[in-house]
Amino acid sequence: MTSQPPISTREFAAIILAAGKGTRLNSGVHKVLHPVAGRPIIEHLLASVEALAPTRTIVIVGDEREQVERQVSARAECVVQEPQLGTGHAVAQAKAALAGFTGDVLMLLGDAPFIKTQTMQDMLVRLREPDAPAVVVLGFEPDDALQYGRVITHADNTIEKMVEFKDANEAERASRLCNSGLMAARAEDLFDLLDRLDNDNTQGEYYLPDIVNVAVRDGRTCAAVRTDHPEEVAGINSRTELARAEAQWQDLKRTEAMESGVTLKAPATVFFSWDTSLANDVTVEPNVVFGPGVTVATGARIRAFSHLEGASVGEGCVVGPYARLRPGAVMERGSRVGNFVEMKQAVLGEGAKASHLTYLGDAEIGAGANIGAGTITCNYDGYFKHKTVIGERAFIGSNSALIAPVKIGADAIVAAGSAVSRDVADGELRMVRAEQLVKPGWADRFHDAMKKKQAEEQKG
Amino acid sequence: MTSQPPISTREFAAIILAAGKGTRLNSGVHKVLHPVAGRPIIEHLLASVEALAPTRTIVIVGDEREQVERQVSARAECVVQEPQLGTGHAVAQAKAALAGFTGDVLMLLGDAPFIKTQTMQDMLVRLREPDAPAVVVLGFEPDDALQYGRVITHADNTIEKMVEFKDANEAERASRLCNSGLMAARAEDLFDLLDRLDNDNTQGEYYLPDIVNVAVRDGRTCAAVRTDHPEEVAGINSRTELARAEAQWQDLKRTEAMESGVTLKAPATVFFSWDTSLANDVTVEPNVVFGPGVTVATGARIRAFSHLEGASVGEGCVVGPYARLRPGAVMERGSRVGNFVEMKQAVLGEGAKASHLTYLGDAEIGAGANIGAGTITCNYDGYFKHKTVIGERAFIGSNSALIAPVKIGADAIVAAGSAVSRDVADGELRMVRAEQLVKPGWADRFHDAMKKKQAEEQKG
Amino acid sequence: MTSQPPISTREFAAIILAAGKGTRLNSGVHKVLHPVAGRPIIEHLLASVEALAPTRTIVIVGDEREQVERQVSARAECVVQEPQLGTGHAVAQAKAALAGFTGDVLMLLGDAPFIKTQTMQDMLVRLREPDAPAVVVLGFEPDDALQYGRVITHADNTIEKMVEFKDANEAERASRLCNSGLMAARAEDLFDLLDRLDNDNTQGEYYLPDIVNVAVRDGRTCAAVRTDHPEEVAGINSRTELARAEAQWQDLKRTEAMESGVTLKAPATVFFSWDTSLANDVTVEPNVVFGPGVTVATGARIRAFSHLEGASVGEGCVVGPYARLRPGAVMERGSRVGNFVEMKQAVLGEGAKASHLTYLGDAEIGAGANIGAGTITCNYDGYFKHKTVIGERAFIGSNSALIAPVKIGADAIVAAGSAVSRDVADGELRMVRAEQLVKPGWADRFHDAMKKKQAEEQKG
Repeated sequence: MTSQPPISTREFAAIILAAGKGTRLNSGVHKVLHPVAGRPIIEHLLASVEALAPTRTIVIVGDEREQVERQVSARAECVVQEPQLGTGHAVAQAKAALAGFTGDVLMLLGDAPFIKTQTMQDMLVRLREPDAPAVVVLGFEPDDALQYGRVITHADNTIEKMVEFKDANEAERASRLCNSGLMAARAEDLFDLLDRLDNDNTQGEYYLPDIVNVAVRDGRTCAAVRTDHPEEVAGINSRTELARAEAQWQDLKRTEAMESGVTLKAPATVFFSWDTSLANDVTVEPNVVFGPGVTVATGARIRAFSHLEGASVGEGCVVGPYARLRPGAVMERGSRVGNFVEMKQAVLGEGAKASHLTYLGDAEIGAGANIGAGTITCNYDGYFKHKTVIGERAFIGSNSALIAPVKIGADAIVAAGSAVSRDVADGELRMVRAEQLVKPGWADRFHDAMKKKQAEEQKG
Repeated sequence: MTSQPPISTREFAAIILAAGKGTRLNSGVHKVLHPVAGRPIIEHLLASVEALAPTRTIVIVGDEREQVERQVSARAECVVQEPQLGTGHAVAQAKAALAGFTGDVLMLLGDAPFIKTQTMQDMLVRLREPDAPAVVVLGFEPDDALQYGRVITHADNTIEKMVEFKDANEAERASRLCNSGLMAARAEDLFDLLDRLDNDNTQGEYYLPDIVNVAVRDGRTCAAVRTDHPEEVAGINSRTELARAEAQWQDLKRTEAMESGVTLKAPATVFFSWDTSLANDVTVEPNVVFGPGVTVATGARIRAFSHLEGASVGEGCVVGPYARLRPGAVMERGSRVGNFVEMKQAVLGEGAKASHLTYLGDAEIGAGANIGAGTITCNYDGYFKHKTVIGERAFIGSNSALIAPVKIGADAIVAAGSAVSRDVADGELRMVRAEQLVKPGWADRFHDAMKKKQAEEQKG
Repeated sequence: MTSQPPISTREFAAIILAAGKGTRLNSGVHKVLHPVAGRPIIEHLLASVEALAPTRTIVIVGDEREQVERQVSARAECVVQEPQLGTGHAVAQAKAALAGFTGDVLMLLGDAPFIKTQTMQDMLVRLREPDAPAVVVLGFEPDDALQYGRVITHADNTIEKMVEFKDANEAERASRLCNSGLMAARAEDLFDLLDRLDNDNTQGEYYLPDIVNVAVRDGRTCAAVRTDHPEEVAGINSRTELARAEAQWQDLKRTEAMESGVTLKAPATVFFSWDTSLANDVTVEPNVVFGPGVTVATGARIRAFSHLEGASVGEGCVVGPYARLRPGAVMERGSRVGNFVEMKQAVLGEGAKASHLTYLGDAEIGAGANIGAGTITCNYDGYFKHKTVIGERAFIGSNSALIAPVKIGADAIVAAGSAVSRDVADGELRMVRAEQLVKPGWADRFHDAMKKKQAEEQKG
């Protein structure tokens, strides 16, 4: 969750399998693009692998490949697998792209994004140990091994064979070490082994784990690395698994926040994004959602039912309840945003307040200003956005409309209910209000007439 | 949860016991009328039994019977039990109503509403098997058998006897098969057996399970049907059990939604009603409540803190955060409703937007229209509701009041802060705004005076 | 949770250890001042101990002592521990303050606030039993005994010795009775034993449990009292433990509410304060937060996403969804507050309604009044708050600003969009609205010009 410092390893290339779209998600969006913690699944994986500084990062794409390419093209090369003939076939597609590459290759799954950087490093380190394994396989021991393929090992964690669950005998099924699908191999070994795979099975597919069996038949050593955290290799193949991954991520982040000195009154009701940054002695009340891009300074209080995205909250600020901070919202020290208030591309100066039913869009509000209930910055004319600038200590009366572009001076006052379309000077009063039209007795006559009409309608 | 197709069975009558009001609920409302998933408990049961097309449906009422009768009278006959002398006595009250009826009788409990249609059918099918049991009893095996009455069976699941927990010996208590209270019998057998019950027990009540013991003494076969889902016979006798039933229902519905292709970022924070309908690739953010009558089309996004009832959300729409859609809200394709916006009996045309702090009641908004922040449709005069019609691509400036009945033309513009009480033609600008009254220096003088007054009050 | 009636005990003094600030919280606020259920931790403890009517209540303060003193000074004496040399040293600081006091002393921990009154009483009663123990220790048996100190007892629950986990042998570690840190002793015994403690250990601290070992060496009897509820002695030393304490408290309160006849549709999403008071047949929908000082009368319905503090909700009222009631909000019988409405220091009369997007501050609203959508009471001029009074059955048109101080008469009508700055008489109509300025075709010309400008900008 916290960004990891780069860790020095030998030169390696990462290959990420992301060809299958994930039919069980029943979605028009490719599996690896569904978000967890406000970030597409594959971006979590890319960030973790980038911490190891790979020489090359190759994503194998297939279904909906334009979607995937658009997402990852700035961070990785894409290689197409078409048709899709199994995981071994998928990795083999990178052969041309890696022609001449002589380092190691780390094989990852696009739908298993929570593999830790440390675990990947453990695999690469194992590959370079003196017994020089041909293939390193990441194994895990789930609580319930279900129908996972098994990694059958010797006592020293070298591999006897890889076996699919359906082909496993009883003793093999009793083995608890399961195949995560993640592997590492030297490039020269890998493509040689892949070339020798067959697809002599019911699905007619080339299976990546079979490279281990080919290498073992050659008399080569292959080795298992174990993770004690089965959840880091959990695949995301359905919306239920997506929700579970989100829940796991959120729980880790909540604990991390509390340990760093943040009070979460009801942790299970607070939702973070991957990059949410909270200082110590921040208090977060129940039912708060943090979208991407939020930082909160020490001593701030985020009250119940608030929703923040792309916002910066200063020291000692109070947000909400029911405040919505949208991208570009900046609250300076000690400012307050209250209920049913929305800020977007707006700066609220030190100690300024907008307490109720207000929209502040494309605005700069000076220190100590008071924005009355029901104030609206009219920032949009249907075509362009315009800016509202409010001076220090200005007082905007309730239910006012500030028609941008407009500037309200320091210490100025806008009278309640005014629609202000021209600049207001420092220390000036602006009032835009029609005459009070008084009609004595009118309401009484209206009530009489309406009651009569109601009675008639009920009769009729 | 999903509606079941009618299943052909022999002719049968359903008797639902709903006389006891449920004192542990400590409520003025009868137990079977408390809602789960936005629908009274007894309506869940009636819907499940109706899937089997019963010839007759009889509800035994007693406490607060007017309440129950009002709820069920369109779907069932009501028979009064007065006084209430036990469950056997309750079923016996249906004898007159079923005079001449020669089919089967299925006995259900109004406070155990989640019995599955399939389970009820299993009971009726068992009743017609060649050994012709006199009574079929639905048994269940809870994790903790507690003080439930036991169904003591032979190896072939025929019944040796029914025994109350307090009368059971040690061996009988060790039996895990518990009596759900649900039974089936042929009408001619049932009323004969009921006539022969006695109330020779501490409570002085006629217990329905005793019909099994009477039949067994006659040398008749009685049979147990088992459910593997104890939760389907769980009774609702307290607010805690009511909350548990709601939670179980919600969890099933959440899983069903995710499996059908809906993304729930935080499933436990989304609340559905019995008839909520969501298409695939709908995304629901945390903390969303669906009241009854909501349908959401594919690709729509329901953002955090939204509340929908009786609303239709079109393809690709964005709702919220903090949107409230009330009955009659219709969002056409690609339209958007933002924060602190309420819609009621209002249609928002294709691609139209109402993004902030707005009330749209009794309104028709044309495609592509833009409703500014703080717009209010003034639809009520204290006696009658009136309609607002807004044309395609119209632009309603922020903080405007549209005083219905009123019509705004296509491509028309209403200036910010206007209270519009007369129709606006196509392509017309309407501005309702007083003169900008400017008082240079007034605010500075006001500040001086007020600060002086404050200082005096603090001294005084 | 419910306040306990005072229980008669012998004269005793309570000493509460609250010197350590709790570094693991990583907070500028002292550990015992962090709130649970809206009340500082130490206030929970003080309330429970006050139910036993102690003669003296002494709080040992140290770190951030001004903070603690400010919180408790009205209810307790504070004694400073400086420097902090262990728990035994902490209690010893009370010696001077208790000079001449001859009753019992109950030693409590400021960060273990959920000790039950009954348990404290059990300890004091045990102290006075015929075998006259020198010290009574409260022991507990957690599911996982971890590294707690152990209370090694004889078969009759008298104590053989107290042992720190690190000093315990295998047999002692196998003992499941752990030391809660809570003790009781006669004053004369206590200070004598404390005088004889040494600090001959790695930390160089004087440990309170060692008084037991000193007393045992003297041949005195010491006794363990056991609690069956380990959670009542759980310490709060981190934000995670703070969140766990909050969760436990909330779960108890939710169950208590349901058992008393309140419907909680989704109990886990409703948050109470220590003093929340709900009558029977109140319904609370999902996602509701009750701050301190709320009472809700029978039949009221608190709808989803509502937030109440210091508010009184009358019989049959409907609140929300998205209603915010702030301190001083009073809803009289059958009144309704709807979405995005805030009330503060305001009374809403019987049957009155404020349904949408409204701010009612410092206001009195008469019975049967109707407050239109978007109404704002302008109660603040930047220096002083002023009052709005609205008569019975008055109708405030939508989007109106009521500029306080102002009085609207009974049956009066304020036209939509009016900013009312002068009183309105009974039965009068007040309209404050400028002329409808009509510019036919202006909008069409504006659209043309803007589209042209957009096109140019895109080219440019």
